[in-house]
Amino acid sequence: MEAKNTGEKSMVIFQPSGRRGYVEKGRTLKEASVALGVDIEGICSEKAICGKCKVRVEEGIFEKYGIESSRDHLSPMGPSERKFISLQQEQAGYRLACQAHVLDNIVIFVPEESRMGKQVVRKAASEIRIDLKPAVKKYYVELTPATLEDPRGDWERLEAGLENGHGLKGLTIDYQVLVTLQEVVRLGEWKVTVSVWKAGEVIKVEPGETKKGYGLAVDIGTTTVAGYLCDLTDGSLVATASMMNPQVVYGEDVMSRISYTITHPEGLEQMNRAILDGLNGTIEEAAALAGIMRTDIVDMTIVANTCMHHLFLNIDPRNIGRSPFPPALHHSIDVKARDVGIKIARGGYIHVLPIEAGFVGADNVGVLIAERPYSQESIELIIDIGTNGELVLGNRQRLISSSCATGPAFEGAEIRYGMRAAPGAIEKIVIDRDTKEVRFKIINQEDWNTELKEVGAKGICGSGIIDVVPQLFLAGIIDRTGRFNKELKSPRYREANGQPEFVIAWAHETSIGQDIVICQDDVRAIQLAKGAMYAGAKIMMGALGVEKIDKVILAGAFGSYIDKVSAALLGLFPDCELDNIYSVGNAAGDGARMALLNTDKRQEADEIARQVQYLELTLEPSFNKAFAQAMWIPNMKDKFPHLAHLLPEDRKDG
Amino acid sequence: MEAKNTGEKSMVIFQPSGRRGYVEKGRTLKEASVALGVDIEGICSEKAICGKCKVRVEEGIFEKYGIESSRDHLSPMGPSERKFISLQQEQAGYRLACQAHVLDNIVIFVPEESRMGKQVVRKAASEIRIDLKPAVKKYYVELTPATLEDPRGDWERLEAGLENGHGLKGLTIDYQVLVTLQEVVRLGEWKVTVSVWKAGEVIKVEPGETKKGYGLAVDIGTTTVAGYLCDLTDGSLVATASMMNPQVVYGEDVMSRISYTITHPEGLEQMNRAILDGLNGTIEEAAALAGIMRTDIVDMTIVANTCMHHLFLNIDPRNIGRSPFPPALHHSIDVKARDVGIKIARGGYIHVLPIEAGFVGADNVGVLIAERPYSQESIELIIDIGTNGELVLGNRQRLISSSCATGPAFEGAEIRYGMRAAPGAIEKIVIDRDTKEVRFKIINQEDWNTELKEVGAKGICGSGIIDVVPQLFLAGIIDRTGRFNKELKSPRYREANGQPEFVIAWAHETSIGQDIVICQDDVRAIQLAKGAMYAGAKIMMGALGVEKIDKVILAGAFGSYIDKVSAALLGLFPDCELDNIYSVGNAAGDGARMALLNTDKRQEADEIARQVQYLELTLEPSFNKAFAQAMWIPNMKDKFPHLAHLLPEDRKDG
Repeated sequence: MEAKNTGEKSMVIFQPSGRRGYVEKGRTLKEASVALGVDIEGICSEKAICGKCKVRVEEGIFEKYGIESSRDHLSPMGPSERKFISLQQEQAGYRLACQAHVLDNIVIFVPEESRMGKQVVRKAASEIRIDLKPAVKKYYVELTPATLEDPRGDWERLEAGLENGHGLKGLTIDYQVLVTLQEVVRLGEWKVTVSVWKAGEVIKVEPGETKKGYGLAVDIGTTTVAGYLCDLTDGSLVATASMMNPQVVYGEDVMSRISYTITHPEGLEQMNRAILDGLNGTIEEAAALAGIMRTDIVDMTIVANTCMHHLFLNIDPRNIGRSPFPPALHHSIDVKARDVGIKIARGGYIHVLPIEAGFVGADNVGVLIAERPYSQESIELIIDIGTNGELVLGNRQRLISSSCATGPAFEGAEIRYGMRAAPGAIEKIVIDRDTKEVRFKIINQEDWNTELKEVGAKGICGSGIIDVVPQLFLAGIIDRTGRFNKELKSPRYREANGQPEFVIAWAHETSIGQDIVICQDDVRAIQLAKGAMYAGAKIMMGALGVEKIDKVILAGAFGSYIDKVSAALLGLFPDCELDNIYSVGNAAGDGARMALLNTDKRQEADEIARQVQYLELTLEPSFNKAFAQAMWIPNMKDKFPHLAHLLPEDRKDG
Repeated sequence: MEAKNTGEKSMVIFQPSGRRGYVEKGRTLKEASVALGVDIEGICSEKAICGKCKVRVEEGIFEKYGIESSRDHLSPMGPSERKFISLQQEQAGYRLACQAHVLDNIVIFVPEESRMGKQVVRKAASEIRIDLKPAVKKYYVELTPATLEDPRGDWERLEAGLENGHGLKGLTIDYQVLVTLQEVVRLGEWKVTVSVWKAGEVIKVEPGETKKGYGLAVDIGTTTVAGYLCDLTDGSLVATASMMNPQVVYGEDVMSRISYTITHPEGLEQMNRAILDGLNGTIEEAAALAGIMRTDIVDMTIVANTCMHHLFLNIDPRNIGRSPFPPALHHSIDVKARDVGIKIARGGYIHVLPIEAGFVGADNVGVLIAERPYSQESIELIIDIGTNGELVLGNRQRLISSSCATGPAFEGAEIRYGMRAAPGAIEKIVIDRDTKEVRFKIINQEDWNTELKEVGAKGICGSGIIDVVPQLFLAGIIDRTGRFNKELKSPRYREANGQPEFVIAWAHETSIGQDIVICQDDVRAIQLAKGAMYAGAKIMMGALGVEKIDKVILAGAFGSYIDKVSAALLGLFPDCELDNIYSVGNAAGDGARMALLNTDKRQEADEIARQVQYLELTLEPSFNKAFAQAMWIPNMKDKFPHLAHLLPEDRKDG
């Protein structure tokens, strides 16, 4: 899209959502955000009293949008606004959205704290049952005070207490913990609680007796980051905190972030800083929700795709972006949180789970240890849907994995009215086959649009996007190839902007004052994403030598919200009995939690990461043909006996 | 000394030497330094052309001297001076000594780089023979480049190379090394040299093949710090660098530094910063001398007394200053250099040797592993002379240690014309018994004063101080109690400032234009220092149940320069056969070097530190009496059969 300065209007782009459009010059950023369906917090009716609508100007040339963004593209700051903006914030480009008027094209970042209605945590934590065997355990020790007859060092005294009272031998102590040991020991009047990592290193000493210890499992997705704060003494989940990955402003998918590091000398550092700052905020948030301090967190596990893994560790990801795609490391690694820049307990470690191959990352390993296909006899296909899609196929005999760049369509990006899973998002869509009328459900609302007085839709999120294509297809609005039926007689069908589109929500049903539509380009984007997944699965079946799939596991940021029948009808994967398709939610996050709570799971992860065989789909000569066929709905050639009863007459052959 | 502002003159105190005196107002600092015998660099004849005479104003109330020091006690900075002083330096209080005029009382710190004629490295390294078994070894590895068929991670590739080529298994890699691994591997075109710590952790990776690896052994003394840069591949000493301990400005001995941390909230941080900055400078200097980079240093060992040990590790030393004197830790510890703030190879460790007891520190452990009294049958007394004196007595059956606060007299401080071992220092003194004429030798000069045309003495350093008292005694100038003989007829003897004094060097033999004398207070200070040592040894003999000492080892910063007969005659230790007295130099530093070159020595140090029994002399009821007797020369009551032939007639009984 080439943005032109029309004289009367300016382009305003809001990050991280990517929502953009032209607004009249002189409008406030807050007005622009309302017009473009972007939620910015504010409770003072734009009177510069609450200070909650802080946003930040992103500066530079945004070639992708053909515009330049600069602070002086906004009106100057007045005294009422300045009250809320510290000098430091001013230097960073912060403004109040309700006070800053648009003078020219501009890119605005809306920080998490200014986003109204926090994102619905789609990376919800499922119930997991696992034996407790955490890396960090706590021990209460009463020391004998130093005397002239026994003037041993504080550390030797503590060592003796840990050995005599708890049988722990040969421990070391973290240097930073040692530095404050004397003070803590005396503050606790010679009674302390010691956190020991892997029965080998003292990583925290607290005065007196404290029973609880906490750990944080983190799933760093390309688009979404989720943190699960767990009580290491009983395994319970005490808080969940999530955020958009702040790196989104540097590129929406893995490849564009890799490109950013190549084209910008400071790119790696910027993105590393962004995820660390974001995670430290998430840590504070999770701790606050649980009523603890961040320093009460004594252990962490991380799963992430290979690129996010590298960016988190401040390792240049460029080599995983070009053949032969070698990562800097595959193995799991334990690093001191402070070495990386993460603010938990001073001596705490982070366990980063292993990577399988170039593009099959630690997040997929998390899925594996959560789902354990390697313990099954039946042939399982695990699909982890994110901005990058990962596939695992096999059973206890053999497992193969692959990766396909689905793009962010399933996360609501690159779809005209796509949005993240937040209040106002359409998450479920049903189209009547005869009347072509649309029923939809909005996140956090019990009833369907047809039963509500005020609907207030803002866009369509991932699960709605997966619903919509099969619904359009079953209603005959698009054909098997995804092409709109131009003969269709429905007030919802029309052509606009040079392509057909179908209205999902009428303007009066929305809070953005415009019709929410699905256009031909949207359908194509969804077809490309699902086709890549399907073709990948097909190639893997060939490689493994299996004719059919016994079981399908749908995992991902919004996995538990995907309608498995919609996914099957869309043709996200080859035919499978419907009863054997499971939506398991964020299995990667579950795996991270399991590894947090039980170190045996870390070992299991290390082993399975080495065993899974990676298949580079782009090297397979038959991929392109399979991909082309898989663009069709559900597929050009393949049969779907288990869907036959659901498909229209002309596709009854499956 | 209460300093008064005389109206015409101001007190100028130079640190770290402590030299002080009144100079006329309006004199430059350079002129003041010449008058007071302080060496400040400068090659432009005070024309503000060379900029080499940078000094720093120490601000605050100096209660000890009864003066206040402030930057505006100097003339303002002019343009010719400002050329050489950066803004940062100006903020830190730097001035050019040749341009700043004294307006009022002032305390000036002369940084090492501005001191003319660097200190003679008294902590000279002796030849040591030891099997090589360093903690860090280097391995050359040729990797197979990544291909699509073998896209393993760089680290896994390196792991395989280390296992296949060198049999190293289960290694980890330092996080910071991992971060740059990809770049290094590609820079070296898949050929790298890997430094592995304790056969367990990769701490450095270099492109291509490099054979040499370096380590630094450091002895942090209260007054002097010495670094020994060694080649870890052949054990050779490649450079020695030493400096005054920059903490001297915060207190001249251990107790005053502990007090400083108690009375100043930022005291610990200031002193820790001072020693770290100093050590980082020493590292740069040693590396430059050897023609290597500081990052070529992959390992370090540290010995230090307990207080210096704590200050180095940024651990509050206050508890070792008060009963029951427990340190924060006794054991040796391995810490990442970067965690402490020391700048060597990014992933390198520092091994800090263990402490024996409250005041018997890792420096004494260094002496022990160098001298190995625990392998001997004969009863050995080891005296480590520093600002704090440590004693070890025993043999293979049992070893006991103790510590006595000798004060800095033997290092030249608290003696009116005392100075550190630097050019111009009198290091040897002989007084003719009949004529009372004085012959002396100056450091770095072959001939005695009587044979030189230009003498240029500036003061007396430690070995001269140990010579002077027995010489005064043997010549009948002082008696057995240390009192000057007021009947003495000699032009060198006089009373001044209310006490007797004896001229060692006439003003015309000096470069400071004044007579260099030893006064009654000086003799008393030396008696106190030596008496404490002697009494300690005596108490220890009682505790060990031995009547006589078979062997005496004199160690210390200037140990190898001490005349053993002078030390015996002074009564630094009980009677011993003269042939069995050895000056071994800086044995603590030797021990640090041995531990650097052979990890078995680290283990030996850990074992011996646990075995040596510490005797707290201040708790021994008989100490005071022994101390009083030991103030006499050589002792009030004890016999010295091995010295009988050297003592005057009336002391022939020994």
